[in-house]
This record gives sequence, structure tokens and C-alpha cells, in this order.
Amino acid sequence: MKSLVHQTQSTPEREPANWIKPTTIIEAPRLARKLGVDLFLASETFQHTGSFKFRAAYQVVSHVPHARFIAASSGNFGQALARACQILGKSCTVVMPESSARVKVEAVREMGGKVDLIDVQRISRSDRVAELAKLDPEAYVASPYDDDFVIKGNATLGTELAQLRTPFEVVLAPVGGGGLTAGLVKGLREAGHRAAVVGAEPMKANDAARSLRAHHLVVNTQEPNTLADGVRTVSLGQRNWEILRDGLADIIEVTEENIAAAVRLLFNLANLKAEPTGALAIAALLTAPEKFAGQRACCVISGGNVDPQSYAEILRGG
Amino acid sequence: MKSLVHQTQSTPEREPANWIKPTTIIEAPRLARKLGVDLFLASETFQHTGSFKFRAAYQVVSHVPHARFIAASSGNFGQALARACQILGKSCTVVMPESSARVKVEAVREMGGKVDLIDVQRISRSDRVAELAKLDPEAYVASPYDDDFVIKGNATLGTELAQLRTPFEVVLAPVGGGGLTAGLVKGLREAGHRAAVVGAEPMKANDAARSLRAHHLVVNTQEPNTLADGVRTVSLGQRNWEILRDGLADIIEVTEENIAAAVRLLFNLANLKAEPTGALAIAALLTAPEKFAGQRACCVISGGNVDPQSYAEILRGG
Repeated sequence: MKSLVHQTQSTPEREPANWIKPTTIIEAPRLARKLGVDLFLASETFQHTGSFKFRAAYQVVSHVPHARFIAASSGNFGQALARACQILGKSCTVVMPESSARVKVEAVREMGGKVDLIDVQRISRSDRVAELAKLDPEAYVASPYDDDFVIKGNATLGTELAQLRTPFEVVLAPVGGGGLTAGLVKGLREAGHRAAVVGAEPMKANDAARSLRAHHLVVNTQEPNTLADGVRTVSLGQRNWEILRDGLADIIEVTEENIAAAVRLLFNLANLKAEPTGALAIAALLTAPEKFAGQRACCVISGGNVDPQSYAEILRGG
Repeated sequence: MKSLVHQTQSTPEREPANWIKPTTIIEAPRLARKLGVDLFLASETFQHTGSFKFRAAYQVVSHVPHARFIAASSGNFGQALARACQILGKSCTVVMPESSARVKVEAVREMGGKVDLIDVQRISRSDRVAELAKLDPEAYVASPYDDDFVIKGNATLGTELAQLRTPFEVVLAPVGGGGLTAGLVKGLREAGHRAAVVGAEPMKANDAARSLRAHHLVVNTQEPNTLADGVRTVSLGQRNWEILRDGLADIIEVTEENIAAAVRLLFNLANLKAEPTGALAIAALLTAPEKFAGQRACCVISGGNVDPQSYAEILRGG
């Protein structure tokens, strides 16, 4: 199946052999000056389906034998799963909150995924996934983060960063379920790179920060309503926690105001369209620049998918 | 001087030896499907100072012996000139219309350039430049387009595109003074690449299209008030015309509505923040997709510098 698909591509440059696009490295000197931190960006906004989640989804779909997939996703993992299934001739159903960005729902459908919209006040995503799995026991239930293939897929970003010729001492990335940060820890360490991995988490959804402080997994009582809709998870995954409890150097908790300000900074000083979740690493630098004095920081901009009206609202708030 | 500056850089990756960042190639399959055209993007929005103009400005400032520069610019050439002067220890004055995007004015100042704001209804940019040149006869008057160094600087983009492994039959790029398209023709041809170069021009500012039809240089009576503020020029430059009269395969004239729609398409389907001028190539595909049937097109996204409020207004118009 894989080789059939590849035959339709004309050159390796148009679609890399493993279907993962290298991350886009962006120097942003004006942003660095404004934040007072020596930084560069690793932007996953131009990855397939517009976020790092494709790394994970492609790894899962290409490595398990199942033909059908079920997943809960606030959007980016859903798009990525749909695209991976489309490429590999498989199918999927994606459970999404009704409040999801419209563009994300449309994108899943455009790539052949089936969308199952739920009211998260009535049923949790995991309960709805369990219902669907009962109806189709041969489908693979794909966690967007708590899955070894997902972590391995995201680790490809860590591997890429480790291979950069530019030195850096710290990598900042959003924390939701912990799939991205766990992948970064794994990828960097396996490549022998010692950069500290620091999570960036909304104060409104700070279960990971609380978990690190408590030395055990802390769970939110309900989905937090942060602007950063990619990290509206109730807790870290178990597999992610196992890596992050010792793997994360720190977590910076950020206000909603700083998330919006970070989106605007990326727009104004780096010409980069990021979704609120994608701007969390910049929000962390805005919150605690003094923690990064004398270091060079790599900020992972995890995704770019955001409704134009929501984005316009954020720009107008500046 | 040049080597002194380079010593402050830690690795070649952080600043390329010749100070030009390679263009960012972005495959955009959803955008391609929407337009019905096989395309990829060559984005100059992550170039130094956020537009292709740095290629030209750096070439000029590093090749003429003058210490001071005077230029008229709707903004991007001004920023680029200021940055090139900053890098090379020189100085500049940039004449800009009062109506220029605020972010562009601020950026010129941030990089050490002096801004001279004018009311274009009272004095033309060229007349103001002539006044300033009279006051400082030892300054070099730098045209943003009608200058052999400028064309040579922009030709570096053509050279880069010619070296891509991906095949393409046509390159679309905005036309204002003709600096970018002339550079593309020069760079591609010198590298032996035969791709057709097609200009994209606002209908409101269609002097280049009229010039091609008339077989002689046609001049607008005043600066056209198009949304695409980077191409508010009264005519092509003489040196540009010499190259473009035979070098351009075609010019597509686009409406203001299609320029705004193209900005939105790049936002929604390619996660790319482009300024209206930067979206002209996409507006051209939106206007006349049938002209590109069966071809693979490279769309040059020339720049990304746009005021957040103007951009929010465009997004809300969708």
C-alpha cells in the first residue's frame, strides 16, 4: 500500500520518502530582542495537516495492522489521523467537542475522516470513544498522546533538532497530554543531545505542573476552557508521565493574556501564523524570560490551525 | 567591515555567509486542490526583514562604496535597506508615504533607518528623494527596482528556484516596479531554467500589463491606491522593462477582492501569513486557473509585513 502511494509522487522533494516534512527553522531576531531571549523557532505549522500531530498519526497508522481507527481529538490529531489513514488506505472516526474550531472539523472531513461531535458537558471524550469502540471492536483506539507509537512519532522532531548544527541549551514546547514533550525528551536523548526540555502550559489547565510538584499524576476534574484548545486535556497520559516525571526540566504556567500576546508577537515580529496552543512556548518566554538568561532556546511552534475569526479577534485585542 | 560583522555570529546556520536566507518552500496541497492548480509556494516572508527586498538591498549596500543611502519605499525596501546598512555599518534615509503600514515605518526605525514621511498627494516620492539628494550629494540614491544591483540581488531567488529538484513550468510573482520579476527572469535564465515567468498585478495598478500590450513603457498618472501597497508604483523601471518586455510570458490582472481572498486562502489552507502584495500570485491563480492547466506552478509569496489591524479586517471580510 505504502509503495503504491509513493509511486504517485514525482520527486522525493515533493513528498519525503517517510512522509514527514522536516520542521521549519526560523530565526526571529526581532522577536528575540523583544523577549530578551536568544531564540529560534522550530515551526510545525507547515507539517502535513498543519501541526506536529502528523508525526504521531503516521507512525501509528503505518505500524498497527488495523484498518479502522477511533480517536478523540480537539482537532489536530484528528486531522493528522484522517490524513494518515487517507495516505495508507485506512479509515477513521474522530470524536471532537462541538466547540472545536470549525476549520479543524472541516479539515478532518476533507481528508476523509468521519467526525463525531459531542457535548463535553454531557459525555467525556473518553466515554464516547469507549462507546464507539464497543460498536466496532476491531477498530484501533488511537490515543493522541498515551501511545508508544505516538511518542515514537513525535520523537522524530527531537531527532531532527538534535541534528541541527546550531547549538541550543533548552527546548520549550506545549504540554497537554504530554505526547510532544515526551517525544522531544526521547528523540533528543536517544540522539545524545542534552538540551533541557521545558513544558509550557496554560495556568487554567496546569495539571502537568501540579503533577510535577506532587510527584504523581494529577487529573483535572473537567476539560479546562483555555484559549489553547490543543491542550484541553484532563491529564498527562500514563506513558507520557513515565517519561516526563524525570525528563522535564521545568514547566512554565502561562496566563490566557500571555497566550494571546504570544500569538500577536509571532504575527508581528516573526511573520508566523500560530494557533494559540502553538504559541505556548513563546508565552512561556514572555512569562519568565529571566529563567533563560544566557541560554539559546528552541521554541517549538506546534501548530497553526486556527479559525480566521478567532485569530482576527486575538489580533484586534493587541 | 563585512568580516567584522560576521565574527559576531556563532555558526553558519544562524546567519548564512552571504546573509541571504534561502527561500522557504511550502507544499500546500489543500490550497492546490481549492485552486485546481498544481502548485507550491516559495515564501520570502521569513527572509531577513520579512520580504524578498533584503536580497536587493544587501546587494546594493555591499557593492557600492557610499556610506549613506536615500530611497523611496512603501516599506519593505526601506526595512531591507535599513537592515543592510545596519549590518554593513552604513546609514540611510527612507522616504515613505504617510499611508504606509505602521509596522513598516516602525521596523525601519528599529533597524536604525531614518524615516521621511510624505503626503503623496503633495509631493511624489521621486521628487522628495531628489530634494534629499540635493541636500546630501554624496549619498547613493537607491531605487527599489530600477538598479542593476537590485535586479542582481533579486536574481538570487531565481537561481535558488532553478536549483530545486522539483520540476515546475511557471513562476508567478507580483509586479510593481519590476525588480522581482526581472530578477527571476535573470536568475532562472542564467541558470538555464526555462520556466515561464508570469506577473501578477492589481487591476487598479495595471501599468505593467498595459505596457506589455502597448509594447512601450506606460506610466500611471498617480500612485494607485491598491490594497497591495508593495506595488503602488507609477511604472516599471527602465532597466526592468528592458528585461520584462521579452522576459515576461504574461501578466494576470487581479481585482482587489481577489487579493483579499488570496490572503485568506493562504491563511486558511497553507497556514501562511502574507501581506496583500505577497498574495498576488495566488490572486492570479484564483483569477485565471485555466491558464495553468497541466502545469506545475511556483508562487512567489514576496513578503509578510502587514499591520495586524489591516490583516484582521481582511480575515473578517471572508
